[in-house]
Amino acid sequence: MNQRVYNFSAGPSALPESVLMEASKDMLNYKGSGMSVMEMSHRSKVFEEIIQEAESLFRDLLGIHDRYKVLFLQGGASTQFSMIPMNLMTKTGKADYVDTGSWASKAIKEAKRYGNVNVLASSKDKTYSYIPELDPASFTKDADYFHITVNNTIYGTRFAPDLLPDTNGVPLVGDMSSNILSEVYDINKFGLIYAGAQKNMGPSGLTMVAIREDLVGQAMDLTPTMLNYKIHVDADSLYNTPPCYSIYIAMLIFRWLKNQGGVEAMEKTNKEKAALLYNYLDESSLFKATVEEKDRSLMNIPFVTGNDELDGAFVKESTAKGLVNLKGHRSVGGMRASIYNAMTMEGVETLVAFMKEFEAKNK
Amino acid sequence: MNQRVYNFSAGPSALPESVLMEASKDMLNYKGSGMSVMEMSHRSKVFEEIIQEAESLFRDLLGIHDRYKVLFLQGGASTQFSMIPMNLMTKTGKADYVDTGSWASKAIKEAKRYGNVNVLASSKDKTYSYIPELDPASFTKDADYFHITVNNTIYGTRFAPDLLPDTNGVPLVGDMSSNILSEVYDINKFGLIYAGAQKNMGPSGLTMVAIREDLVGQAMDLTPTMLNYKIHVDADSLYNTPPCYSIYIAMLIFRWLKNQGGVEAMEKTNKEKAALLYNYLDESSLFKATVEEKDRSLMNIPFVTGNDELDGAFVKESTAKGLVNLKGHRSVGGMRASIYNAMTMEGVETLVAFMKEFEAKNK
Ligand SMILES: Cc1ncc(COP(=O)(O)O)c(C=O)c1O
Ligand SMILES: Cc1ncc(COP(=O)(O)O)c(C=O)c1O
Ligand SMILES: [Mg+2]
Ligand SMILES: [Mg+2]
Ligand SMILES: [Mg+2]
Ligand SMILES: [Mg+2]
Repeated sequence: MNQRVYNFSAGPSALPESVLMEASKDMLNYKGSGMSVMEMSHRSKVFEEIIQEAESLFRDLLGIHDRYKVLFLQGGASTQFSMIPMNLMTKTGKADYVDTGSWASKAIKEAKRYGNVNVLASSKDKTYSYIPELDPASFTKDADYFHITVNNTIYGTRFAPDLLPDTNGVPLVGDMSSNILSEVYDINKFGLIYAGAQKNMGPSGLTMVAIREDLVGQAMDLTPTMLNYKIHVDADSLYNTPPCYSIYIAMLIFRWLKNQGGVEAMEKTNKEKAALLYNYLDESSLFKATVEEKDRSLMNIPFVTGNDELDGAFVKESTAKGLVNLKGHRSVGGMRASIYNAMTMEGVETLVAFMKEFEAKNK
Repeated sequence: MNQRVYNFSAGPSALPESVLMEASKDMLNYKGSGMSVMEMSHRSKVFEEIIQEAESLFRDLLGIHDRYKVLFLQGGASTQFSMIPMNLMTKTGKADYVDTGSWASKAIKEAKRYGNVNVLASSKDKTYSYIPELDPASFTKDADYFHITVNNTIYGTRFAPDLLPDTNGVPLVGDMSSNILSEVYDINKFGLIYAGAQKNMGPSGLTMVAIREDLVGQAMDLTPTMLNYKIHVDADSLYNTPPCYSIYIAMLIFRWLKNQGGVEAMEKTNKEKAALLYNYLDESSLFKATVEEKDRSLMNIPFVTGNDELDGAFVKESTAKGLVNLKGHRSVGGMRASIYNAMTMEGVETLVAFMKEFEAKNK
C-alpha cells in the first residue's frame, strides 16, 4: 500500500498527518539543536521548552485551574488503576466505583486490593451497552473518591458532560483515556483525571494526569516511589527520565488541536462525524448501533449486522478498501469504528459510503 | 546549526544516524501498512512482528538462555528499584546491595522500604570513584538476591565482566542501564538484569528486563498489578499498551547492532574509543580521569582539570564546536563524556583533538 489508510483502531490510533510530517522532518535535527528529540537529555533547555509548552497547551485546551498539577507519567492508564487507590484511598479507606465496562472492572478489581470499594451500579447485564442510572442516596458520604470511566472504549458509551454524577464534595476521579480533548468537560468538577496518550494525544508510553493539589501527598506507606503522585509533583514530572519523545509528539498534537480551534471546535467536528455514522446506523436496515442513544460515545462506535458471517465479510472487504481496524472487540462482536480527533470527516464519509455499498450488495 | 552535533549526553543520548533516517522515512507509512508505527494497535499483526523481532534480536545479542523471560516495560529503571524487592524479596525478606553511586543508593533506599537490606560495601568515601572490594564472607547466605549497579553512569565505574561477584547461588540482580550491549557479559550469571532503553537501546520510556523463570510469580501481596513481573510474563509484555514506538526504535537499534557484528564487535570498538580518551587523560598534564584504572567504565568517562574556571571554559568552548553535553554531573564536577554504542570513533577523535588544542592554549 502506497498511501495512508483510514485507521479506525481503538488505540494506539490515527494521528494527524501534519504532526507526523513535522516529526519526520525534524527527526535528525530538531530546530537546529543538532539532534533528534529522542537523543536529548531530559534536563536540557531544549527539552524543557518542549515539556513546558506541552503542559501549558494541555492546561489551556482543557481549561485546567491553577490548583491542579499536571503530570507526565509512564505505565499507562492501567498503572493509574493502582496509583489512585494507593494515593487517595487513605482517609476512610472507602471509594465508590461505577462498573461501565472492562476498564472500569479492572479499576475496581485493583482498588479492592487496597480498600473498601462500593460498586454503585453496573451495566454488565446488557453487555455494558448503557450507562446505569445512579441513585445519589447510595453514594458513600465519606468516600475518599468516586471513580468513573468517562468513556468506555470497548462498549462505546460515555458519561456525557452534563451527566457527570454530583458527588457532593467527594473527589470525582475520571478515566478519560478514550475521550480526553474530544468534547468540552468541566475538568474542574474532577479531583483527578487520567488518560493514556495513545488515543487522542499521541503515541503510547505516556499517561497524562491532572490532580487537584489537596489530593497530593497522602499516599499509603507501601506505595512504590514511582507510583507516588507527590514525587512527580515535586519534580515537575522529571523525577526520573520521562517518555520524552511521546511528550514531544503530544506537544505537537496539542498545538495542532489549538490550531483547529481547541476542544470546542473539536467537539463540533466530532459531533458531526459521530452523527453521520449514528444516523446512518439508525436508518440502515442491515447495520445497527449497540448503544442506547443518550449514552453514545462520540469516539468509539460499535455496530453489528446481527450475522457473524456478514460481519466477517464486512471487516475483510473494508480492510481491502483501506478502511482498517474495524473489527469489534471480542466481548461485543461485530464492528467498532474509533473516530478520535485525528480521524477526518472524510474518513467517516468514506466509511459510511462503503457501508451503504455493502448494504446494497447484501440486501 | 545545520548539522548534527557530537552528543555526549549521559541519557537520553546519541542514536545511530541510520536508525533515525529509517524511522524518519517510515514515519507516515511503515512498510506499506499505510500508517505510522505510532498509530498501530499493539494487538495488530504488524506490531507483533516488530516486538517479536525486537525480543529475538535482544536475546541473540545478549546470549540469553531460554529459561529467561524478556520483558518490555514502562516506568524506567527507577520503577525497577521497587519492582525488584516487591517481586523477589519474598522468601527470607533479605537482600545484599553494593553502594557504588547515586543509582545504587536509590535502589537501596527503595529496597529498605520492603525488607532487610544489607549494604555490603560502599565507595562513597571517595565520591564513588572505585568499585569497592567485596568480602564473600560478608554475603548473606540466604538472601533473596544480590543487587549491583553494573555500570555507574554518574561516576564512570563498572563491575568488569570478569569481576562480577560470585554470589554462591544467590540470584545476582544487575542494573545495566548504562552499559547493556556495550561489552560481553555472561547474562546467564544473573537472575535478573534491567536497563532503561535511553542510553544504548533507544528513546526513553522503555525498560528492558530479563528475568530467570524461577524468580517469577512470588510477588508480595500488595504489589500493584502493573509492577508484578508475572502479569507481564503471562501476557508477553502485552498486558496493557506497551510503549510501541520505543520498542520499534529499539528493534531498529538491535538490527543495527547485529549488522555491526553484535556485542563482541561493539566491545572492540568501545574499548578502542575508551582507550583513546583514557590514554590521553593519563598523559595529559591538564586533564585527568577521576576513576581508578581497573574500575573504569567504557561508557561514561568523567574527567577534570582541577580548576573550575577552566572546566567552565572547556564546556563552553567545546559546545561552540559542536561537542555537546560534556558538563559533568554536579556530584563529580568537571566534565563527563558518555560514549555509548552510537558514539562514533570519529566523535571521540574529534573530542580528543579539541582537548589537545584546549590544553595547548591553556598551558
Ligand atoms: C478507558 C480505558 N482505560 C484504560 C485503558 C488501559 O490503558 P493502558 O493500556 O494505557 O494501560 C484503556 C486502553 O484502551 C482504556 O480504553
Ligand atoms: C545506572 C542507572 N540506573 C537507573 C537510572 C534511572 O533510570 P530512569 O530514569 O529510566 O528511571 C539511571 C538513569 O540515568 C542510570 O544511569
Ligand atoms: Mg470499556
Ligand atoms: Mg439500523
Ligand atoms: Mg551512578
Ligand atoms: Mg592526566
